[in-house]
Amino acid sequence: MTAPSRHALVPFVSVDNMMKLVLHIGVERMMTELAAEIEADFLRWPLFDKTPRVASHSEVGVIELMPTSDGETYGFKYVNGHPSNMKKGLQTVTAFGLLADVATGYPLMLSEMTLLTALRTAATSAMAAKWLAPKGTRVMAMIGNGAQAEFQALAFKAVCGIAEVRLYDIDPAATAKCARNLAGRGLNVVSCNSAEQAMEGAQIVTTCTADKQYATILTDNMVGSGVHINAVGGDCPGKTELHRDILLRSGIFVEYPPQTRIEGEIQQLEADHPVTELWQVIAGQAEGRSDARQITLFDSVGFAIEDFSALRYVHSRLKDSGLYQNLDMIADPDDPRDLFGMLLRAGAAQAA
Amino acid sequence: MTAPSRHALVPFVSVDNMMKLVLHIGVERMMTELAAEIEADFLRWPLFDKTPRVASHSEVGVIELMPTSDGETYGFKYVNGHPSNMKKGLQTVTAFGLLADVATGYPLMLSEMTLLTALRTAATSAMAAKWLAPKGTRVMAMIGNGAQAEFQALAFKAVCGIAEVRLYDIDPAATAKCARNLAGRGLNVVSCNSAEQAMEGAQIVTTCTADKQYATILTDNMVGSGVHINAVGGDCPGKTELHRDILLRSGIFVEYPPQTRIEGEIQQLEADHPVTELWQVIAGQAEGRSDARQITLFDSVGFAIEDFSALRYVHSRLKDSGLYQNLDMIADPDDPRDLFGMLLRAGAAQAA
Repeated sequence: MTAPSRHALVPFVSVDNMMKLVLHIGVERMMTELAAEIEADFLRWPLFDKTPRVASHSEVGVIELMPTSDGETYGFKYVNGHPSNMKKGLQTVTAFGLLADVATGYPLMLSEMTLLTALRTAATSAMAAKWLAPKGTRVMAMIGNGAQAEFQALAFKAVCGIAEVRLYDIDPAATAKCARNLAGRGLNVVSCNSAEQAMEGAQIVTTCTADKQYATILTDNMVGSGVHINAVGGDCPGKTELHRDILLRSGIFVEYPPQTRIEGEIQQLEADHPVTELWQVIAGQAEGRSDARQITLFDSVGFAIEDFSALRYVHSRLKDSGLYQNLDMIADPDDPRDLFGMLLRAGAAQAA
Repeated sequence: MTAPSRHALVPFVSVDNMMKLVLHIGVERMMTELAAEIEADFLRWPLFDKTPRVASHSEVGVIELMPTSDGETYGFKYVNGHPSNMKKGLQTVTAFGLLADVATGYPLMLSEMTLLTALRTAATSAMAAKWLAPKGTRVMAMIGNGAQAEFQALAFKAVCGIAEVRLYDIDPAATAKCARNLAGRGLNVVSCNSAEQAMEGAQIVTTCTADKQYATILTDNMVGSGVHINAVGGDCPGKTELHRDILLRSGIFVEYPPQTRIEGEIQQLEADHPVTELWQVIAGQAEGRSDARQITLFDSVGFAIEDFSALRYVHSRLKDSGLYQNLDMIADPDDPRDLFGMLLRAGAAQAA
């Protein structure tokens, strides 16, 4: 067969190449750079096409498409959430994503996004904490020590200057795994036997648990004044991590209210409970933390713009790194009206 | 690096492999089989998750995501529509698609869909005509001889027994291209100098033009009684092909009314103008053609379920044909909670 044209080829970043890219750049540097990209896109938030994710629910999980566009580049992510997968030895969340050129509709890059989502989620959390947590914070409690935990710890070290992480998980094996993976990376890692113990001396608490139910990872008495709560979780309707009373005492910051009202911690509150959009804090249009005693809550559910920022970051590194392969994904006949002729010529070449 | 696990790999059907698959099966046999798959899915229409496509519009075009699910398998298509692309030597429409397992959310197959969309569009048109066109039809007029034309002609030959196609396009070069490509395939191909000439003796007329404007490819006086109109076009709001008066004389059949009311020919009519859903005709729940003199119109805009059927058809041929490559697309660590450890081990393997 004849070789596909330049337009037919779409760079694809495999899991293997994504791992090589992260190792090449370095986890902490990549977290810092991703946080900067995400922050820059939050700053131009109003110009993005925004829509709640398009979800297909089943009894065991959800498959979602998360599109957005800045008018020049279009991006979307495919992501699933299946809490029962872990028992089958599968990832709860897997993802891939695509960037395309708005002017032509042609894809620019296809990429794995399971790893990239873990990185962008942690980078977004740390970026939000940079704006909302008390100044000079050095200690973070980390409740839930699953697949996202190490990424969160290293993002907060790189972006917020966290020096100590205090780990707790209902499964001690998860805590041991997390502590092992974080060893020797310049963090003081403390494994704890209870959430209360993990909270000791922490000014930031990150909750990141995955059960699909109304859980109460944090109760009201556990959260003292001045704390910043980074509620990550695997959010969906019917899944929360914080007791409602904590929410009522907190200044609440969200990504995109129409989505967070459905999926976030604030699904427990009235539909008109006041929340602040994080982009407005960054743009100087809304107040962030009001004082040193305020409890701030970043009710994070993950939004398409963060994936867009992460995909653009990876795309900008493709040429230098060479860490991609070209996929023959777009049928591109010499004469665009002659799609059938392309097929005929392929047949003739095959027969020759 | 260590080899990715079985779960990490997603079969990918490139343009080259799709062409090989079509040539291997044969265009007409594939049209017949695709039409049967699509018909079978129309028959179980009520059990599908249905949603209008998710569109991102710009001044020059649109990028759309078209998801659906039958509860066991999930599918979506990415497709763009950029009428100005042709002047740049690019395809107006390009597409790719994905199937996934609803039970786990893991992708089952990624595939090019520019060619596959051309095939499924033609197969859907012919399947609809099998139910709606007058019995014993042998002659089809084909107005618009672009990228979709040959696929339509061969689908109608294979599925409906069409023996003669009468071609017309405002650009004679397009007609010449189409006639050349159809030569020697058992069809009597007649190139015409006007739409009126193309209509002579035709009981089916297929309109398939691409300009993004309210055009009138067919006027009322051109359409006699008993004709079946297959209005394909590159549908979108503001883009139609038929004069409104034809619609008012026709029995109108559609795929998914909420989408067709926005994008199809019937955007010219009142929002409550009666239309029949094609699946109901197939399921015996609604009448098709009422009599030999009725004008029937299949106001086709393309729906996600047709893409789903086509992707499942290709997926069912993967093992036999071997026409795919495996993509390392899903991060799949041995311990699903140890995503970071997978990265660490990749780094250790790299250093070794």
